[in-house]
Amino acid sequence: DASALDIAHFKGLAPRSVHSHKGSYGRLLCVGGNSGMAGAIRLSAEAALRSGTGLVKVYAHESSKVQISAGRPEIMVTSTNLEDALAWATCIVIGPGLGQDNWSRATYETVLHYCQNNPKPMVIDADALNIMASTASFVSIDDYVMTPHSGEAARLLNVTVEEVENNRFVFARQVAERYHATCVLKGAGTIIDDEKSAWVCRHGNPGMATAGMGDVLTGIIGSLMAQGVSTPLACQYGVSLHAKAGDIVAKKQGQRGMLASDLFDTVRMLINE
Amino acid sequence: DASALDIAHFKGLAPRSVHSHKGSYGRLLCVGGNSGMAGAIRLSAEAALRSGTGLVKVYAHESSKVQISAGRPEIMVTSTNLEDALAWATCIVIGPGLGQDNWSRATYETVLHYCQNNPKPMVIDADALNIMASTASFVSIDDYVMTPHSGEAARLLNVTVEEVENNRFVFARQVAERYHATCVLKGAGTIIDDEKSAWVCRHGNPGMATAGMGDVLTGIIGSLMAQGVSTPLACQYGVSLHAKAGDIVAKKQGQRGMLASDLFDTVRMLINE
Amino acid sequence: DASALDIAHFKGLAPRSVHSHKGSYGRLLCVGGNSGMAGAIRLSAEAALRSGTGLVKVYAHESSKVQISAGRPEIMVTSTNLEDALAWATCIVIGPGLGQDNWSRATYETVLHYCQNNPKPMVIDADALNIMASTASFVSIDDYVMTPHSGEAARLLNVTVEEVENNRFVFARQVAERYHATCVLKGAGTIIDDEKSAWVCRHGNPGMATAGMGDVLTGIIGSLMAQGVSTPLACQYGVSLHAKAGDIVAKKQGQRGMLASDLFDTVRMLINE
Amino acid sequence: DASALDIAHFKGLAPRSVHSHKGSYGRLLCVGGNSGMAGAIRLSAEAALRSGTGLVKVYAHESSKVQISAGRPEIMVTSTNLEDALAWATCIVIGPGLGQDNWSRATYETVLHYCQNNPKPMVIDADALNIMASTASFVSIDDYVMTPHSGEAARLLNVTVEEVENNRFVFARQVAERYHATCVLKGAGTIIDDEKSAWVCRHGNPGMATAGMGDVLTGIIGSLMAQGVSTPLACQYGVSLHAKAGDIVAKKQGQRGMLASDLFDTVRMLINE
Repeated sequence: DASALDIAHFKGLAPRSVHSHKGSYGRLLCVGGNSGMAGAIRLSAEAALRSGTGLVKVYAHESSKVQISAGRPEIMVTSTNLEDALAWATCIVIGPGLGQDNWSRATYETVLHYCQNNPKPMVIDADALNIMASTASFVSIDDYVMTPHSGEAARLLNVTVEEVENNRFVFARQVAERYHATCVLKGAGTIIDDEKSAWVCRHGNPGMATAGMGDVLTGIIGSLMAQGVSTPLACQYGVSLHAKAGDIVAKKQGQRGMLASDLFDTVRMLINE
Repeated sequence: DASALDIAHFKGLAPRSVHSHKGSYGRLLCVGGNSGMAGAIRLSAEAALRSGTGLVKVYAHESSKVQISAGRPEIMVTSTNLEDALAWATCIVIGPGLGQDNWSRATYETVLHYCQNNPKPMVIDADALNIMASTASFVSIDDYVMTPHSGEAARLLNVTVEEVENNRFVFARQVAERYHATCVLKGAGTIIDDEKSAWVCRHGNPGMATAGMGDVLTGIIGSLMAQGVSTPLACQYGVSLHAKAGDIVAKKQGQRGMLASDLFDTVRMLINE
Repeated sequence: DASALDIAHFKGLAPRSVHSHKGSYGRLLCVGGNSGMAGAIRLSAEAALRSGTGLVKVYAHESSKVQISAGRPEIMVTSTNLEDALAWATCIVIGPGLGQDNWSRATYETVLHYCQNNPKPMVIDADALNIMASTASFVSIDDYVMTPHSGEAARLLNVTVEEVENNRFVFARQVAERYHATCVLKGAGTIIDDEKSAWVCRHGNPGMATAGMGDVLTGIIGSLMAQGVSTPLACQYGVSLHAKAGDIVAKKQGQRGMLASDLFDTVRMLINE
Repeated sequence: DASALDIAHFKGLAPRSVHSHKGSYGRLLCVGGNSGMAGAIRLSAEAALRSGTGLVKVYAHESSKVQISAGRPEIMVTSTNLEDALAWATCIVIGPGLGQDNWSRATYETVLHYCQNNPKPMVIDADALNIMASTASFVSIDDYVMTPHSGEAARLLNVTVEEVENNRFVFARQVAERYHATCVLKGAGTIIDDEKSAWVCRHGNPGMATAGMGDVLTGIIGSLMAQGVSTPLACQYGVSLHAKAGDIVAKKQGQRGMLASDLFDTVRMLINE
């Protein structure tokens, strides 16, 4: 008995106050982009900007800095002073392109440790979920979101991917309950579960099964949370925006060969409706 | 009793002489772009080119050079020989992405010292204002502009942000008087004050509260000054172009998710009217 | 008696299953991009993404990493751990921008050695063909494609370019037979020969005689193979898509000055028909 | 009595042979792009590709490589083995962003020395002209073009800029005669002089007085020469294409804020007419 999500049911964000400034729309820190995976965190960061966050900073591996900012000058990038960046942020995304090497684990530990003591809304995705699964670490903060696909959910619950695939609602709830998080279980019919209720997205198409699509979703959810949207609503609305944008782009240009960054303009259009 | 600025009131720049060359439209030096903040000075430099300056050079941190020129080959970039670059320039912008570390302060001191002895039209923005506030330095040249937002103005005057916000006209005048500069106090209803008169911009919208928008404004004002427009008029016209461009883009594509670089094409269109 | 290929004769790829994920559309590894030739492998990788492969990784020279991912964040890039990348892949492209220096040869040897023991569908192009010719190495795996132009075919067969040009069908068959590969002999009227049958492409125009066009073709063929299309069909359909896209772009914007990356949008359009 | 050049008078390039390949349209080497001036040589190289040259390679300073190829993967780039690159080329452009430091002079000497012994069509521009003026070097090859603006012409002839400006036809002829080159004297009404005849371009506008416009012209002329167009015709047609493209772009989007790279699409359109 999950509720079905349809973009038409959301009333959209409130008009912006005339007296707002760029700090009014959040300061989002996106952590990831290890060597060779700069693109993943760039996609999250750009998606967050296109979803309306005022300031977006990336913390990435030294070797990824140029690629992240060369094509999108509005993104700030740092590879040093992670604690300063965490203190600056009002919301945190961790995982896209993080990898699982020593740098990844040290970065993950620093972020988690900081957030235990200084709770801030947080989205945990991709390799951060894999590190979480491998270290059996728990996060005891209130407002956080986990965005596994089936494989990551399986690792988080120590079950097989087939088990997750055959019973997605059950395992979305299990992730939410075991980790006390809002779980966004990605896939055909993405499920959101906040331990009490579940929602399933009506939009989306198999053309979205392509590199970086998840990174864009993570950026959108983080962006909404940074703008003050409540955690479950940010997940429901973010998932719906992302999937509907994918449907609109696929309808215009086809499912095959659609890339993650193709969604930016359409996400922006939808979020202004 | 500030005069209201409306883009329709400006007659625009005079037609270009057939016998002009690229030096006829100024040589603008943009100083900033510390490590991790390459994008800020890139936005200023590109805005200046799109506003008609013939030659734009950036002086930035060594680690920012690639990002600044990779996407906009018309920008020149250097991270050495700042004095040569200052001598080359006919107008200077300092501040976007400058930061506040040792490199920032050394760079700031070199620029200010040079300009005291070799006065050139100058725009001081962002972290250059913060360094100015922290060092209580003054600039004794004629044609210079300061472009603080409320937070920067508060630091420059050693008052609270709330005080500035509650009495923007008074504090715009105070900045202008204390620093003998034309002050552009950014925000909803940007104010220009040249110690004697004040103007307030009718255009603009809260979608412009996003990363890099101020950098674009600084580039536009610097560009107009480099093209020979008088300092107060460059501020009035530059602020109006920037805010009107933001309104046009927001009307077409929505306020939320608008990025600073989205304004370039529209600024170019408006400056040709 | 080669069969003529016309894009209208292909029924296109089957609709995507609703329950697919990004792994369902292959993991393509593109090997090449030596120092100064980053663009070649970037073109192959981007063409593969636009043709529908779910995940594309590039293995390139250390000095090429930034250029490859800066403009296309969906591409992953590595310059270390080639064996890990090979193990990750379900299909391999080697050659674009590979060069012929020590790094090139070591890279080539590692790939060939790996694939002898772990056969995977493979496309061998450009400098990988030149290395192959110079080392008289053979590949004893089933599903592989060689994509020489006339010059490369001549080197592979130790004949002159003129001989190849004067008897293209004969020499396409000779390449296929000697190397037990499907041969795609590029040129005006590209020929595909799988040792038993031959096909010739009706589409294409001399505007396609420009840098990087072959790299794009290689990426398309590799992409189709990664998506599970059989080797000869991937060659026939890939060659037809590429040539027809070139015709469409040339008709709209002229043959002269057409660049390889101009084809991406049109390839994407055609592959969705 | 210079002949007036109008784009309508050119019959355009002959249709391409069906049996041509990318080598049929030349291999152009563009030399320049010192540290901080990568953009200049990138603009020349991209203009050459858009004008129809099949293969374009840049020889630039080590620190410029990433910026040159990141945004235009069809360009090859090297910072080593200049002699190999010279041997590879069928036509050479030298000067855009070359600078005047030790690297510039060593590079210039290598190119000139090579071309004295291995004559190839050549375009000498920008800082290469300044080095030429300062070293009083002469080039004793047949097919070469010099493309000074008034300031560079003045340095080449050891006269003042005012003298050149006041008598452009006379000094264009003097450059041509003294250096035994075809001289393209840029400015309002660009003049071409081949020692015997002179032509003056009817197209062009003061919006073209902006950074990089000359680099684009140099790339177009080099591209035409690489495609086999005779030297004086390449100059006449190249200048006309460039100026007319600038007029078309300015008419659509205004003179002010037009950038050099805005011309690429229009040059491509015109060259296909």
